[in-house]
Amino acid sequence: MISRNEAADFLSGADDILILSHQFPDGDTLGSASALCRGLQKLGKRAMIKCSDTIGPKYQYLFNGIEQQNFTPAVVVAVDIADLQLIGEPNRSLYGERIDLCIDHHPSNALYAKRSCVDPKASAACEIIFDILNLLKVEIDSSMASCLYTGITTDTGCFKYINVTPTTYRIAADLVEKGAQAHRINRAMFDAKSRARIELERRVMDSIQYFFNGRVAVIKITQQMIYDSGAAEDDIEGLASIPRAIEGVLIGVTIREKTDGDSKISLRATPPRNASEICAAFGGGGHAGAAGCTFNTTMEEAQAQMLEEIGRYFDRHEQ
Amino acid sequence: MISRNEAADFLSGADDILILSHQFPDGDTLGSASALCRGLQKLGKRAMIKCSDTIGPKYQYLFNGIEQQNFTPAVVVAVDIADLQLIGEPNRSLYGERIDLCIDHHPSNALYAKRSCVDPKASAACEIIFDILNLLKVEIDSSMASCLYTGITTDTGCFKYINVTPTTYRIAADLVEKGAQAHRINRAMFDAKSRARIELERRVMDSIQYFFNGRVAVIKITQQMIYDSGAAEDDIEGLASIPRAIEGVLIGVTIREKTDGDSKISLRATPPRNASEICAAFGGGGHAGAAGCTFNTTMEEAQAQMLEEIGRYFDRHEQ
Repeated sequence: MISRNEAADFLSGADDILILSHQFPDGDTLGSASALCRGLQKLGKRAMIKCSDTIGPKYQYLFNGIEQQNFTPAVVVAVDIADLQLIGEPNRSLYGERIDLCIDHHPSNALYAKRSCVDPKASAACEIIFDILNLLKVEIDSSMASCLYTGITTDTGCFKYINVTPTTYRIAADLVEKGAQAHRINRAMFDAKSRARIELERRVMDSIQYFFNGRVAVIKITQQMIYDSGAAEDDIEGLASIPRAIEGVLIGVTIREKTDGDSKISLRATPPRNASEICAAFGGGGHAGAAGCTFNTTMEEAQAQMLEEIGRYFDRHEQ
Repeated sequence: MISRNEAADFLSGADDILILSHQFPDGDTLGSASALCRGLQKLGKRAMIKCSDTIGPKYQYLFNGIEQQNFTPAVVVAVDIADLQLIGEPNRSLYGERIDLCIDHHPSNALYAKRSCVDPKASAACEIIFDILNLLKVEIDSSMASCLYTGITTDTGCFKYINVTPTTYRIAADLVEKGAQAHRINRAMFDAKSRARIELERRVMDSIQYFFNGRVAVIKITQQMIYDSGAAEDDIEGLASIPRAIEGVLIGVTIREKTDGDSKISLRATPPRNASEICAAFGGGGHAGAAGCTFNTTMEEAQAQMLEEIGRYFDRHEQ
């Protein structure tokens, strides 16, 4: 584990830098990558970004004006990637063995990189990137500020999750002062919904089931629902917050059918319940408030196993 | 108009202080009143709060632990009240003529008080109260911090509206440091949905229809839906924002069936479209962004008339 200072020193001496974002890219991994790429280019270095998945139109503004540079990477940096698995293919095969630096905020970070700068107290990887850019003496311009703000606001649910600290607000203040388009970003990230998203939400809400006297709510996202609604990956993001928002629900479970028929579960938990502890039983991980795991089974089987595990969790922790 | 310093000086010399909140009380007027009352009591003064309307259970935590003091008010302070009208009865008749100090952030403040401390740049009246408490050298404790945070987060839509400034974030950082229960407050104010609300949302979302090439979306709330879902008035609040949030929708129409079979329409419009102009055709009104009107007809007839009017509006305004 290295400090922000050491990470900045390492980057300061590096060039021809490839920055990797995780698969199913979200605002934090893309905001971190785009802000860091802009900063490194501003220092006169060659830098570029790769992501194993396509980046949705909603995030395109993060990359506006970044210079496309082609070079053979000498240094590989992973941002907001807790685990080699999450790099996705093809980037995992291409670069998985040679990650020189990982900048992340997941407590479950697997320390797979040669150098890991991980701070679980940061609400978003973008908080750490903000500090590193300052240590590198990069002058944060309005584009970088918008990229960093995007990561922070998406990873905190617009300053709503329990991971928000005084530091989070202070960084947001600085970023808005430097020109981050906070209002526009928040509207795009949280308010605007595509018709496909609305169609998908309808179907997903029809699937709500309650268990454990309403303390657990489960929703399902099937491939059929995604197909019928015409939803893209972008449209699926954030659905996992629906079940936990229901009054009385302590643990919200979102089961998603993968294209290969396997299942992925996203868990959300109200403190002091720990989603990460529950997902760990299935080899998954994440934060106390939000965690995930995958199952090589149908959704029904995944649901049965997860409910059993939650039952055991309640037995251990609730009186 | 007086400065925060002058307002603090005035309060410093005052005692037996009555604090008024506005009718249909929201998080900012109640957060301002409860934080100020706590602060004045901490300075050894007698202080109490009055509101013309009943305060909902969702806001009760703001008043926990405030000492109930009975006295004849010598000084009356209005917080977050732009206009005498908004004091509501009976407080308007009782105190409307003798407001010694108004602390507010509405640009439309009617300057009805003997002294007005109004700052339209503040996202919430609570931002101004925060400064005044500091000027009074009150040590802001965790209860006060939660009250002030409540006003700021509710008046900014959890830091989402265009009124948020770097100062807003910095005050939020200070308040969280002083013990404001930000996560719990945001969850209660923004996330928590009753099961009845979820059931109602499902039904309402099933009613979505699109018109004018997707520029207009219509949802319906029938008495049957309300009955079937077990929804209370609280559960219906905010549904009108659903249609306008859909991508490409310029005008969102929410038609609600009244208990007497008549219909009420809530309109939401994306700038520069003007919801108020459209509703005026039916004797209704409101703001450019949000307006409403009623129809002595069924929902179907109300919808037909409204769509016709929107058609005429588009003919007038869109090329």
